[in-house]
Amino acid sequence: MTQVQGVRIEIINTGTELLLGNTLNTHSAWFGRELFKLGLRIARQTTVPDGDAIRDSLEEAISRADVVIVTGGLGPTSDDLTREITAEVLGLEMIMDEAALRSMEAFFAVRGLAMAEANRKQALCLVGADSLANPHGTAPGIYVPPRLNSRSNCAVFLLPGPPRELYPMVHEQVIPRLRALAGVEIVNEALVLKFTGIGESSFHEGVDQRLAAVPGLEYGYCAHIGEVDLRLIGTAESLAEGRKIALEQFESFLISDDESSLEETVVRLMAARGMKLALAESCTGGLISHRITNVPGASEVFTHGFITYANAAKSELLGVSPEDIETHGAVSETVARAMAEGALRASGACIAVSVTGIAGPGGGSEEKPVGTAWLGLAVKGEPTKAYKIFHPRNRRDFKLAVSQAALEAVRRKLKGI
Amino acid sequence: MTQVQGVRIEIINTGTELLLGNTLNTHSAWFGRELFKLGLRIARQTTVPDGDAIRDSLEEAISRADVVIVTGGLGPTSDDLTREITAEVLGLEMIMDEAALRSMEAFFAVRGLAMAEANRKQALCLVGADSLANPHGTAPGIYVPPRLNSRSNCAVFLLPGPPRELYPMVHEQVIPRLRALAGVEIVNEALVLKFTGIGESSFHEGVDQRLAAVPGLEYGYCAHIGEVDLRLIGTAESLAEGRKIALEQFESFLISDDESSLEETVVRLMAARGMKLALAESCTGGLISHRITNVPGASEVFTHGFITYANAAKSELLGVSPEDIETHGAVSETVARAMAEGALRASGACIAVSVTGIAGPGGGSEEKPVGTAWLGLAVKGEPTKAYKIFHPRNRRDFKLAVSQAALEAVRRKLKGI
Repeated sequence: MTQVQGVRIEIINTGTELLLGNTLNTHSAWFGRELFKLGLRIARQTTVPDGDAIRDSLEEAISRADVVIVTGGLGPTSDDLTREITAEVLGLEMIMDEAALRSMEAFFAVRGLAMAEANRKQALCLVGADSLANPHGTAPGIYVPPRLNSRSNCAVFLLPGPPRELYPMVHEQVIPRLRALAGVEIVNEALVLKFTGIGESSFHEGVDQRLAAVPGLEYGYCAHIGEVDLRLIGTAESLAEGRKIALEQFESFLISDDESSLEETVVRLMAARGMKLALAESCTGGLISHRITNVPGASEVFTHGFITYANAAKSELLGVSPEDIETHGAVSETVARAMAEGALRASGACIAVSVTGIAGPGGGSEEKPVGTAWLGLAVKGEPTKAYKIFHPRNRRDFKLAVSQAALEAVRRKLKGI
Repeated sequence: MTQVQGVRIEIINTGTELLLGNTLNTHSAWFGRELFKLGLRIARQTTVPDGDAIRDSLEEAISRADVVIVTGGLGPTSDDLTREITAEVLGLEMIMDEAALRSMEAFFAVRGLAMAEANRKQALCLVGADSLANPHGTAPGIYVPPRLNSRSNCAVFLLPGPPRELYPMVHEQVIPRLRALAGVEIVNEALVLKFTGIGESSFHEGVDQRLAAVPGLEYGYCAHIGEVDLRLIGTAESLAEGRKIALEQFESFLISDDESSLEETVVRLMAARGMKLALAESCTGGLISHRITNVPGASEVFTHGFITYANAAKSELLGVSPEDIETHGAVSETVARAMAEGALRASGACIAVSVTGIAGPGGGSEEKPVGTAWLGLAVKGEPTKAYKIFHPRNRRDFKLAVSQAALEAVRRKLKGI
């Protein structure tokens, strides 16, 4: 079994802004996912305000845990006390790390700034501890190995709060030390298979028992709107077996096996084929275009987007016949087809996808309740297809679910499914 | 002073999915904001896995805190042990709450479902405690007043995890009890003033000292991309004074004083004037349209959106001259103006806003680095305006910052600023 059962890891996040609700704590979910890949778990996560409050929670945590990871409180202000309090709690002196000081001075010099006196304390380290270089900010991290801890056998990491500083430091300097501490000798690997078009319950029914029987494999599901991620960890061999089991049943629903999003997959597939995409959006109101253009390099494949929110716009920009809108309604198979075909014509793209639906809260009827949408898929030289979908959710989730269905229709077309 | 200094509140969130990183913990930020309005603070927040792990953290929390709020673990499965463990820790018996059981049976009956045997335990209450009705789900909440707690003088709330069940229960049943517990007799009020176009430092320099001098007023800032929220709590009188101070300096930057977003404000202002909006987006790739169409009722004001990601699309859909694109570049004042004017013409709207810029990571030059954007604002019968903006950020933050600037340009026009 690859899970490292014996290692208790606790995370302490410091930051008054997290407790006032000004800032959402995304660190602990991120840590959870990173540790999962090593077969490790967070046993407890605690958030405390800036300042002295960290003292009690640190004392408690080191008495329980094998590894304590503290984020935040390494800054230059008087509220940033993580370094000082940790030294007190562990009974260690502080010492100026001259190399860290030079590197901080260089950080400011490169930006043409003078280093303030207050920043000097950020280069203080604990005697005997490792200073963890921070190429993306001023405060180095600190690693106190268990042998320096006079209170317990617990290792302590002090890490900066900002994600752009924290994440690379964890990957480069924390994970190798965690592996050594946890005795993760068999190198675990992680694999995330993203699926769309099926629900989590299909996995429970379809592959759960077979996955559970693979020696050395751990797995978990993560369900989003219109997407289920199957996360596997284990040895290379057990991963290959887990992957095989999942794909035997569900390969046609696979978005990616490299954590790429559906929009990244669509952009990559189209770019590889030299194809152009056009979008005609009514009920999603620009969300599909927004998702596609979040992908760097989207301009290679995406040229024209038509947000035809009003009926007149559907006719003017996409040539949808006003009679068809009158006869069938704007949310209809006929109009979805005509929108997709109009977008193909007006853009010269190879593929166009259209959506028209009722996002709510108003606008529903008995025949077409809120949550109803039609999706059109027009491909140069092929007959246009249309699909009816139904996602009775709140407005934002409805938009997301419909955008997912539209991108999935394009993916399936590109994969020939 | 309206802050209730003496009351120590701790939050315990249970849920393995939070620690595995499958689900982001949004509860604690939400609680932070709700408690802030009462002048209360979270002293500590802890996340523990499902199951028995809640025991230690609950024992510790009730020994330190005046109020402990636990979320999650009230479900029907064997891992849902919050109710049972709290009874043990507080030394209370459990009893079937017949009213809660009836109401749960009704919940299932209305949905045409049979209630499973496992659900019965959700109607168990602690002897003497209050059962908190849950109209949006199956598990009632539980409130244990301090007098029932034989271990300490701490009050304990057990609440369901799903936000749609949790939030109304907090508003309707938890906050009134918290007010009573905390002795919040002066009814505090909260006011959120949202600003855009200025940074947090302008507030520090401009109004900080004057706000700090208002008796009975507490305030805090919350900075987002392209937005600063000033949050005030206090008596009606102190709020009015705080509001006056902030608006004397910054009224022209005010988005709303009722927590409306910038897009909600724009939709409302346009609807009130019976005006229509058109959008011509290049670098934001649909995000502005997406934001506008997140607002219920957007169809009253928004008709046409043009996502002209390719240069050809700018010419074909908006009539931008290819020579102008060739001469000035797609990211230029000339093209931004032409895009906005083209959108106005093609849509028949009263106002059109356009954006064209370099989102990166590629495509920058010395003259026009990544982060550069031009914004055009065309108004029927008026000369078109254009603004250059510069937001050197990552791709997603750049899109958000530019969308904010575009919506703000529309707001300022509508307000005659």
